Amino acid sequence: MKELEKVLDRIIQRVNINLRELGYDVKPFVSNLVAPGQMVKFYAFYGITPHHPLNFQFKRTNLAGSYFLGKCQVTNSLLYKSDIRGDELKKKDDIFRFQDFEIQIHKDEEIDIEDSFLIKTLVHNYSHDPETLEKFFIKDTISTHYANIHGSPSDGCFLGPFATVDLTTMRDCVIGAYSYVQAGEINHLHIDPGTVWVRSPDVFNFFYQYPSDKLNKYIYFQAGSPPQGLFIDFVEDRKEAFQRVFDVVNMEPSIPVPKNSSLDRFSVIKPHTQISENVLVAQRAYIQNSFLGKGANAQENCYIINSKLEGYNITAHGAKIIEADLGKNTFVGFNSFLRGMPDNRIAIGKESVIMPHTIIDVKKPLSIPEGRLVWGIVTNEEDLEENSISLNDLSKIVSYYSKGNMYFEGSGKRFVSAFKDRIQHILEANGAFFSGEQKKGHAQKNQNISFNTIQPYPLGELEGLYPTIMIRP
Amino acid sequence: MKELEKVLDRIIQRVNINLRELGYDVKPFVSNLVAPGQMVKFYAFYGITPHHPLNFQFKRTNLAGSYFLGKCQVTNSLLYKSDIRGDELKKKDDIFRFQDFEIQIHKDEEIDIEDSFLIKTLVHNYSHDPETLEKFFIKDTISTHYANIHGSPSDGCFLGPFATVDLTTMRDCVIGAYSYVQAGEINHLHIDPGTVWVRSPDVFNFFYQYPSDKLNKYIYFQAGSPPQGLFIDFVEDRKEAFQRVFDVVNMEPSIPVPKNSSLDRFSVIKPHTQISENVLVAQRAYIQNSFLGKGANAQENCYIINSKLEGYNITAHGAKIIEADLGKNTFVGFNSFLRGMPDNRIAIGKESVIMPHTIIDVKKPLSIPEGRLVWGIVTNEEDLEENSISLNDLSKIVSYYSKGNMYFEGSGKRFVSAFKDRIQHILEANGAFFSGEQKKGHAQKNQNISFNTIQPYPLGELEGLYPTIMIRP
Repeated sequence: MKELEKVLDRIIQRVNINLRELGYDVKPFVSNLVAPGQMVKFYAFYGITPHHPLNFQFKRTNLAGSYFLGKCQVTNSLLYKSDIRGDELKKKDDIFRFQDFEIQIHKDEEIDIEDSFLIKTLVHNYSHDPETLEKFFIKDTISTHYANIHGSPSDGCFLGPFATVDLTTMRDCVIGAYSYVQAGEINHLHIDPGTVWVRSPDVFNFFYQYPSDKLNKYIYFQAGSPPQGLFIDFVEDRKEAFQRVFDVVNMEPSIPVPKNSSLDRFSVIKPHTQISENVLVAQRAYIQNSFLGKGANAQENCYIINSKLEGYNITAHGAKIIEADLGKNTFVGFNSFLRGMPDNRIAIGKESVIMPHTIIDVKKPLSIPEGRLVWGIVTNEEDLEENSISLNDLSKIVSYYSKGNMYFEGSGKRFVSAFKDRIQHILEANGAFFSGEQKKGHAQKNQNISFNTIQPYPLGELEGLYPTIMIRP
Repeated sequence: MKELEKVLDRIIQRVNINLRELGYDVKPFVSNLVAPGQMVKFYAFYGITPHHPLNFQFKRTNLAGSYFLGKCQVTNSLLYKSDIRGDELKKKDDIFRFQDFEIQIHKDEEIDIEDSFLIKTLVHNYSHDPETLEKFFIKDTISTHYANIHGSPSDGCFLGPFATVDLTTMRDCVIGAYSYVQAGEINHLHIDPGTVWVRSPDVFNFFYQYPSDKLNKYIYFQAGSPPQGLFIDFVEDRKEAFQRVFDVVNMEPSIPVPKNSSLDRFSVIKPHTQISENVLVAQRAYIQNSFLGKGANAQENCYIINSKLEGYNITAHGAKIIEADLGKNTFVGFNSFLRGMPDNRIAIGKESVIMPHTIIDVKKPLSIPEGRLVWGIVTNEEDLEENSISLNDLSKIVSYYSKGNMYFEGSGKRFVSAFKDRIQHILEANGAFFSGEQKKGHAQKNQNISFNTIQPYPLGELEGLYPTIMIRP
């Protein structure tokens, strides 16, 4: 086990060196976060398909429970139960457009994780940084429970639990628990927990700050203890359901799957769930007693319980939807938590956008009109009034707007169209519009994946570390 | 699937070129032996332990259902449900003694399989060829169902079902079904089915030939059909019991396992089986309602049913023991078939040697005295008289001896001592004499193996072929 501990010490030291200007010591946060025994216990796995060019390389690394798809190198790192989904990597000779530039990709993009520790982190990469097109790097970075690194190269950073960094290149930053950052490029910033920040430099800037007393009930993380709160309890309560999925080599789906849809064999499907055409249910998604309409997607670590999604719905990574009815084309962003009750359901009108990291937690029925943008924490009608705006009204803003804890500046129109474009891209990439011949997406490409499992040395000095593994086409 | 078929065609062509002088065309034997669909269906797996230096490399190859332990390269080959056990490979700086030579091993020995097709073949290699110490090659070779390649480098050969080549280097040879060859070095030979040949050049020569009419009932293989006969039926009838073993990721043993014994997680254990100290049960062994005394071993593909083995018993690869009682230190050689009946059991006295490829198949009780060597086919007392000799009497032979279909020439004493040394080595290597501290063998070293699984491309041109995989320490 000795060498495994050395790898951890080395990572902590490297992250601390990067964060020295912020005076941030990650050691007390990280030291007891995963018992070393756990790191020997779980197999990691990688997918093989004809659609995803292969190139895996794992060196001096622990990968317990992690999942890989697409080209990826991991060196001197610990990846505990993390999903690394490189299925939207740029390919050789693709043209990348940025402002007036048209940049040719000179070799297949690869994920490169070095001296980093990811804990239950999801890395999914449709990266946008024009400066680093062939390498998607995560370097000297620690990212904790259910954080999302989404198209975001990262060097010298610390991400708290349920944090999301989205289409942002970051260096030497601390991202607090449940913060969402989509800001292009950031350096040497310490983002407080519960910050929701969406910026397109010189175009718009959206900023919301959770009141810490309200957020702490849901997620709270301090040095010396593991993360606590309702989000953690919610996930832990459903952990056991995943046991069988990982114990069995070949899983047959327990419900009918239309031929253009895919149900990942590492997802959990409880009765009585129905899935329609062009639906993607990703690995580690949990669906119970719910209806997923045509073109809906249920992304990694999401939970959909006792709910109806009419079609073309996006349930982003880590989102939770409980006792809710969603109209067509709704978007529920990363790690959002929507919790109705059996007799007090949440209804969301078509084309509404639930911003990433939004909490809607109600004891009475709540109805969100169509075409609305919702953010922050909403527990009743009054909160909804303060934490939402119609997309129409938002489109009319040209300079500045504020409501409750939310500040907006710049072009509302550009903000709305950026969101709509993104939603369109996500539906497309996931295969929602597949015609039977054209517009193939993940729902179609992920139907036939061979999964290979790998494990670490079971004993000795190298216990918990994986051998060097190289997989090429 | 196209590329998979090309690999098969290439192998057939290369083997035929090697066998051109024997005028042997392997194509009609091989063409429909494994449906290509089967080759996509099963995962292969390899073991990781701190005791076995790693180096796996798989290129342009199918490995369906195969198992690997120890350093191994496979290129342009098809390995269908084969076990490649490189756990007795020579290590760098070992000294290899041969006659008056003391040869230093300059690098770790590796298994190298190229342009070969192995079907349910076991390769286990404590190789003895002084000419090729660092590379254990299997080249341009096709080896069919339940053949054993045991410490036997092979170039340009065809092995029929249940054939065994043991401590023999062979070039351009055809080895018939159920033939056993242990002959040092052979070239351009066509060995008839049912030949048992043990030769130490200039020291001794043991030769037995099965009557073909009697052998055909047990195993029969002709061009155009899969192998047939009682041996095949016996194995097929018990195939289903292995299903669960391969379906589940982690197997807990169903019976108590003493701390110095090991029960491979890919073995099948039926009620009411007991295993004692220092016992090795290898992968794909099948044990039912039997007792394995201290230091006994049950090697790959062996079956032990309703039997009692008192201790220090060797049940070699592929041997079957049904309704039998074996005294201490008995040896049952490769692919031997011992079948008693519930009220007509077989008893074998201590220190008896059942030669490899012996059939004892009785309808009345049969008792084999202690210290006896048995060969050939034995169905009653009379056969036993014709097909056995006491080791004492055998030791006294100095020039020539013949009995039934068996011919012996040379030194009986050297033949007996060679067998006894070999038995001692096998028990030692398998950990039968482990003291709690010293004489560790496979029974102790194989207790903690991490198994990693690998699969081929599920679709496309490369369907059925595995990606290039490299595993290093």
